[in-house]
Amino acid sequence: MTNPTSITVPDGVPFIDMVREFDAPRAEVYRAYTEPALVTQWLGPHGYAMTITEYDVRSGGSWAFSHLDPDGNSWGFHGTFHSVDPNESIVQTFEFEGMPGHVSLESVRFEDLDGRTRVVAHAAYQSVEARDAMAAGGMEKGVREGYERLDALLAVTT
Amino acid sequence: MTNPTSITVPDGVPFIDMVREFDAPRAEVYRAYTEPALVTQWLGPHGYAMTITEYDVRSGGSWAFSHLDPDGNSWGFHGTFHSVDPNESIVQTFEFEGMPGHVSLESVRFEDLDGRTRVVAHAAYQSVEARDAMAAGGMEKGVREGYERLDALLAVTT
Repeated sequence: MTNPTSITVPDGVPFIDMVREFDAPRAEVYRAYTEPALVTQWLGPHGYAMTITEYDVRSGGSWAFSHLDPDGNSWGFHGTFHSVDPNESIVQTFEFEGMPGHVSLESVRFEDLDGRTRVVAHAAYQSVEARDAMAAGGMEKGVREGYERLDALLAVTT
Repeated sequence: MTNPTSITVPDGVPFIDMVREFDAPRAEVYRAYTEPALVTQWLGPHGYAMTITEYDVRSGGSWAFSHLDPDGNSWGFHGTFHSVDPNESIVQTFEFEGMPGHVSLESVRFEDLDGRTRVVAHAAYQSVEARDAMAAGGMEKGVREGYERLDALLAVTT
């Protein structure tokens, strides 16, 4: 049975909130979020390939990657890591190069549930309109499928 | 006559918006925002001293500084530069170490008004409550006084 994914797009405020539990220890979930060779195996929708060009997971580091969809289109994303507290939380900026100039501030917190893990993510956008555009752009499907892929990865790494 | 400073703290959304014009060319205003030896001369309220420990103004760079108030208290701030487009715009993260864990995403745009300059700043917070706390904390006075100090600096550098 797949753990449910909660995605909230609240009216009138520029946020997207996501909560998802994983049947794996927190250190393993954190590792899957931060080691490039693991990230590329799950982040993004089914059928996408991922190339990471930079993933310097430390406070003040930068990151950049591209998704390649099944039709051969490439989608770039990049940002900075504002703060990284290993196994606890990450705060980073996020820019989708398909919407250049629109930046969001994303935080993810890893909660230890006695051997299982709850991931709590909060994204803040510069406008409600930019949030709406991101929510309308297939983000939700990509997130749910990515978490399913992460379940599968954690089943073999833990 | 001092140019007016517009500071907007809109109800219900986690933003602070500021608009200020300066009687100086855009390149000079941009320089005053980005060269540490100039920044320390104006950023912050009257009577404060400022020490910059890092100010790497490029996309992916980091920054950190401290304000020292007239009573000898030190206030630290730090973040990353998500994107820097020289003379045009800067997008950066911002964390006041007096409210650790609360991060905002700040953008500033420099508009050329035919030899004068309009600065348009937009800050997005992770919650309306964090925005309210920042707005209640004397931010407005510090901003207005900082811009007055910047007027004075630009009068001697241009």
